[in-house]
Amino acid sequence: MEPGPPGGSRPAERRPCLSSRLGADRAASASLLSAAGAEPGRRPLAVAAVLPAGGCGERMGVPTPKQFCPILERPLISYTLQALERVCWIKDIVVAVTVENIEAMNSIIQKYHHERISVVEAGVTRHRSIFNGLKALAEDQPDSKLCKPEVVIIHDAVRPFVEEDVLLKVVIAAKEHGAAGAIRPLVSTVISPSADGCLDHSLERARHRASEMPQAFLFDVIYEAYQQCSDYDLEFGTECLQLALKYCHTKAKLVEGSPDLWKVTYKRDLYAAESIIKERISQKICVVMDTKEGEEPVGHLLEEVLKSELNHVKVTSGALCHAGGDLEQIISEQCYNFVCVNVMTSDFQETQKLLSTVEESNLSILYPVVVVSVHFFDIKSVPLSQKMEDLMWIREFAKEVRERNILLCGLLICYPQDEQKLQESLRQAAIIIAALIKERNSGLVGQLLVA
Amino acid sequence: MEPGPPGGSRPAERRPCLSSRLGADRAASASLLSAAGAEPGRRPLAVAAVLPAGGCGERMGVPTPKQFCPILERPLISYTLQALERVCWIKDIVVAVTVENIEAMNSIIQKYHHERISVVEAGVTRHRSIFNGLKALAEDQPDSKLCKPEVVIIHDAVRPFVEEDVLLKVVIAAKEHGAAGAIRPLVSTVISPSADGCLDHSLERARHRASEMPQAFLFDVIYEAYQQCSDYDLEFGTECLQLALKYCHTKAKLVEGSPDLWKVTYKRDLYAAESIIKERISQKICVVMDTKEGEEPVGHLLEEVLKSELNHVKVTSGALCHAGGDLEQIISEQCYNFVCVNVMTSDFQETQKLLSTVEESNLSILYPVVVVSVHFFDIKSVPLSQKMEDLMWIREFAKEVRERNILLCGLLICYPQDEQKLQESLRQAAIIIAALIKERNSGLVGQLLVA
Repeated sequence: MEPGPPGGSRPAERRPCLSSRLGADRAASASLLSAAGAEPGRRPLAVAAVLPAGGCGERMGVPTPKQFCPILERPLISYTLQALERVCWIKDIVVAVTVENIEAMNSIIQKYHHERISVVEAGVTRHRSIFNGLKALAEDQPDSKLCKPEVVIIHDAVRPFVEEDVLLKVVIAAKEHGAAGAIRPLVSTVISPSADGCLDHSLERARHRASEMPQAFLFDVIYEAYQQCSDYDLEFGTECLQLALKYCHTKAKLVEGSPDLWKVTYKRDLYAAESIIKERISQKICVVMDTKEGEEPVGHLLEEVLKSELNHVKVTSGALCHAGGDLEQIISEQCYNFVCVNVMTSDFQETQKLLSTVEESNLSILYPVVVVSVHFFDIKSVPLSQKMEDLMWIREFAKEVRERNILLCGLLICYPQDEQKLQESLRQAAIIIAALIKERNSGLVGQLLVA
Repeated sequence: MEPGPPGGSRPAERRPCLSSRLGADRAASASLLSAAGAEPGRRPLAVAAVLPAGGCGERMGVPTPKQFCPILERPLISYTLQALERVCWIKDIVVAVTVENIEAMNSIIQKYHHERISVVEAGVTRHRSIFNGLKALAEDQPDSKLCKPEVVIIHDAVRPFVEEDVLLKVVIAAKEHGAAGAIRPLVSTVISPSADGCLDHSLERARHRASEMPQAFLFDVIYEAYQQCSDYDLEFGTECLQLALKYCHTKAKLVEGSPDLWKVTYKRDLYAAESIIKERISQKICVVMDTKEGEEPVGHLLEEVLKSELNHVKVTSGALCHAGGDLEQIISEQCYNFVCVNVMTSDFQETQKLLSTVEESNLSILYPVVVVSVHFFDIKSVPLSQKMEDLMWIREFAKEVRERNILLCGLLICYPQDEQKLQESLRQAAIIIAALIKERNSGLVGQLLVA
């Protein structure tokens, strides 16, 4: 699993281009693509992407086309757009959707602040939709703000987990070979049936590959191929690499892709996508502490227990009232989970400050942000029921921020004098916090849980 | 999606053989398989199954072999065994696991009450494991309690959602053709690379199929094929149908399978499997009500709201103190979710009765059972904090039943006089109940939620 959420950091912060996650070799080839990295006097390679998104998702068994099915309340296609637009060297992204979905598509672009996207009308088949996308990019379109790219990426709207790395690989290979596509090993043996529905022969699994997306082409090659190809190809074909081979004699370079490239095809794939996205945005927790005297120790204890109980989760801490944007920095690093520690107070002043900062950051535009308002109580000095009553208005408060995609819960942690019992309370709290973050279920917002 | 949970009803109740879900045609062919349905003087067809489960799951990216990865705390292979053993006409199920997993496998069989399972040692490849399973079934094995079947099913340990229907189809086809296997349409285009890593040609998607499992064979055909085949086949082959073709000239009949036949291959597939299983066991909720006078109306109101808010969920109600096993009947129909309504009492007497019944049924052996203890309170007559304090010991209580795989939560529902406000409370309650049932997260047990 990649550590970051799919599609990276926008709108909280745009990731720097050609991020350090790419190795030195790759970064060198990538310099082709960036204005900064290009040799003096050479223009960087112009790259655009076309996303056919006109399918009706009949295999999904649900009425909504799969690219518009919601994952954490956001349509699948928005995750794919996010994955492409974070790659700064892709200049334009052309999405082809059916006439009846154009308005919905424009709303999605607006709501999730997508950039560099142009919407065109889909054709009745996948190949026709791609062709429409290519036409929009071709120079001879009047009134178009699009420019003809040198290399065009073709990707599926339903493969949201594509990484910059593989996009770069296919683009570089396309520049050299004219065409390139990602491949994966076959999961099942492929067989050829005879006319009577019996086995004719089975293919040797090791000698074949599944052709996946993304693919990339010299624009002139694939545009030529689409202009030349027959109506039969446009109606029944499925493979762009085949068109480039057949009509332009361009043998595509095949690039091994990662398992991340899978296509959301069936309902189970939507479940898988949701779980992956939830997992990715649950990798970091920030424990926010007030820095007033005497309040920190127990907050740090909770931080320590979270670190030891939640393997694989990066737990950091930040202060609300530091002058220099401690918290802003954490937010910009894509942390979607906050635990706000209140040691003795029975109010939500600190939590409110945190919520304001989160809201101002636009962090919750793309993903629901979980905020747990933690309150410690000493059972000897104040009865639990009193403490609960004091905190009950978290319900109203949670309802309000829910509208801004922030999921707020309260958590009361018993603070006994006994060291061992305190550890037990904190462990219990860590389990509850983990559950809230993992499930991200809006049905539980406003609840006051007890550890 | 199939309505029932994978693997059907055991141990709560064994489903009657050749259930009414099969159509009349299928039931007629199925009579071949059952002692009751066979013609007088004819023995029913003897069918066994072999499950190779010796793989190391390298594609999963986790250290545990995928067939032993837990889903809702139960290993994946147990779900597959459950799916096979509920089919009463499969007499024996032979599982091949590596030496180091034999003990673990035996524990799984014992813990989840699996029946008709024999464990054999896996070979180093899939084909060798299957061969070992077949050898165990062959008559000439000394001291074996297994009988040589007429037809043998070969299935994967990592395809837990196989339905009786497709098992029946491949068995009937194998009886007629000597071999049969389930197939599915290809999701991706299959291509053949050339030696230099470029596209040589792509296969026409419509003329090829993915070979899936289950497959079935006349035992003598497949056993002969394995005895004849080369070491190369045993080491590098992947396709049993191909062995039957090559060594016994038996052309397998291909049977269209449903999407349910997919194989758990990658980590995302485990996520998908977990979501599917959770969805399947969340299809029914039973609202349990005391029948003392005056207590029912509000319980029925809650039942009505659950029905209208939770689409696709079958909401039934049962009484605890009816003489004739109302609740037992509901449990036997695989209901894994219970809402116990307490109108005025602040104790858990009714909830305890329900829990006892659930425990006695063994319902929670295979799946975690969710029990929500609902308590109404009138905010004018008793303060919420008082009510909460009264009910706080649900925490201890929940901890206790957690060990028996029962997830208990409390839910306080505000009961205002105002009709509209009451409806709002009940709707809120339905959302919380839905969240608890959907997530089935043990981190939240013992919490007292408020609607």
